[in-house]
Amino acid sequence: MLKVVCLGAGRLAHQLMPALEEAGCHIVQVYNRSSFAAQELADKLKSTTFTADINQVLPDADLYFLTVSDDAIKPVAAELKNLISADAIGVHCSGSLSLDVLPFKRKAGFYPLQSFSANHEVSWRWIPLIITAPDEDIWQLLDAIAGQLSSSVYRMTDEQKSVLHVAAVFANNFSNHMLTLAENICKEHGLPFEILKPLILETFSKAILSGPRDSQTGPAVRRDQKTIEKHLYLLADHPQLTAIYKAITNSIVENS
Amino acid sequence: MLKVVCLGAGRLAHQLMPALEEAGCHIVQVYNRSSFAAQELADKLKSTTFTADINQVLPDADLYFLTVSDDAIKPVAAELKNLISADAIGVHCSGSLSLDVLPFKRKAGFYPLQSFSANHEVSWRWIPLIITAPDEDIWQLLDAIAGQLSSSVYRMTDEQKSVLHVAAVFANNFSNHMLTLAENICKEHGLPFEILKPLILETFSKAILSGPRDSQTGPAVRRDQKTIEKHLYLLADHPQLTAIYKAITNSIVENS
Repeated sequence: MLKVVCLGAGRLAHQLMPALEEAGCHIVQVYNRSSFAAQELADKLKSTTFTADINQVLPDADLYFLTVSDDAIKPVAAELKNLISADAIGVHCSGSLSLDVLPFKRKAGFYPLQSFSANHEVSWRWIPLIITAPDEDIWQLLDAIAGQLSSSVYRMTDEQKSVLHVAAVFANNFSNHMLTLAENICKEHGLPFEILKPLILETFSKAILSGPRDSQTGPAVRRDQKTIEKHLYLLADHPQLTAIYKAITNSIVENS
Repeated sequence: MLKVVCLGAGRLAHQLMPALEEAGCHIVQVYNRSSFAAQELADKLKSTTFTADINQVLPDADLYFLTVSDDAIKPVAAELKNLISADAIGVHCSGSLSLDVLPFKRKAGFYPLQSFSANHEVSWRWIPLIITAPDEDIWQLLDAIAGQLSSSVYRMTDEQKSVLHVAAVFANNFSNHMLTLAENICKEHGLPFEILKPLILETFSKAILSGPRDSQTGPAVRRDQKTIEKHLYLLADHPQLTAIYKAITNSIVENS
């Protein structure tokens, strides 16, 4: 049975470690700066110890999963390097960082392409798992584990993963921010955001089913200059909204 | 039974007229510039005639629904005015136009806040219907009809409806375009857009359930300057994507 140490006890670790356990791994230890957080996660797992002292991290596990935030990966990995066997595999879960940040001889990236919340359980079956692993044997090991969690496992280079991460920012962060701006506009004029929810649901169902390009509607794709000017007039007091409106409108026109 | 004439036979008319029939209206006639399109819609309805000659529009209906495109509303309404009784009510279905474009004495707006496709039937029950009607009796008449179609009927002024229309552009057109840009980035690098679909589904479920502001994730809301710079470097060959990336990133920072 593969022995796994989990470094970090945040939202991702809380969802990933039970899934790795299901896939047959033994999570032997959870490390976190906060002893309370480390224990909280360890309590969710079977026969797992915990520590808040990195020097107490068990040296003989097979896999060390760094689930800490991007900023903490490099410093935690640097400390970890001196504590573990040279054959152990160090794995980070970042979408944006390359493998260069890991000082280990044997290393990999294990990036679940999903947005994790504290209070919302995800279904691993549908989460694409992006694996970066220059060594063939490490790829095979992680592919075998990943295949038990999810039905879509991809091996990518660091460069491909970086591009995918930018695409994910547009697909998730930026599309969500468009909804926030819509909500702001409604609130400012005393209109309930609820009115927009059926439209939002339809937008995303269509984009998933027919593809976003074929689903584009609205004044920009129609080149409806009158409506665009009316909208810019209504947004005139908001220079930032105006700038976003113009930039996206131009982009829709050029893409259609 | 209320007698309705439908002017226009596009996607909206194809979904709205059968629904009005269900609500107890008699669609007496469909007018469309193309006789073929007029007949196609009339054939879907009960005892409905059709014409491609506006001078043949029946003069004695109660309601004239202008479902034509925004650009056509004004010219079609101008021709219609001389043909129908002064008591008839002219109704347009535009989200962006005010009632000023209608030359009738008795008039209203009936705007279903949804994006209609040819090949995708919508469920009227969940579509917000926005009614603009300065006359109390016309509001009551349309509210009674609308209430049979949908469980969310709103009376608004032209000004409120304009604001809602801008918000809808952000919520639908602009969020959808973010998905198109994500697809473009994937395609350019040979990555399948499919990988992003689970993330997209999660994005919109969360925004609907928890609200978009609380659901915001990503480098901008974390003020993760390193990742933002890496993304801008990856987008350096695409000035338009870069401009959009910067504008939305700044807006997320200012809104959080």
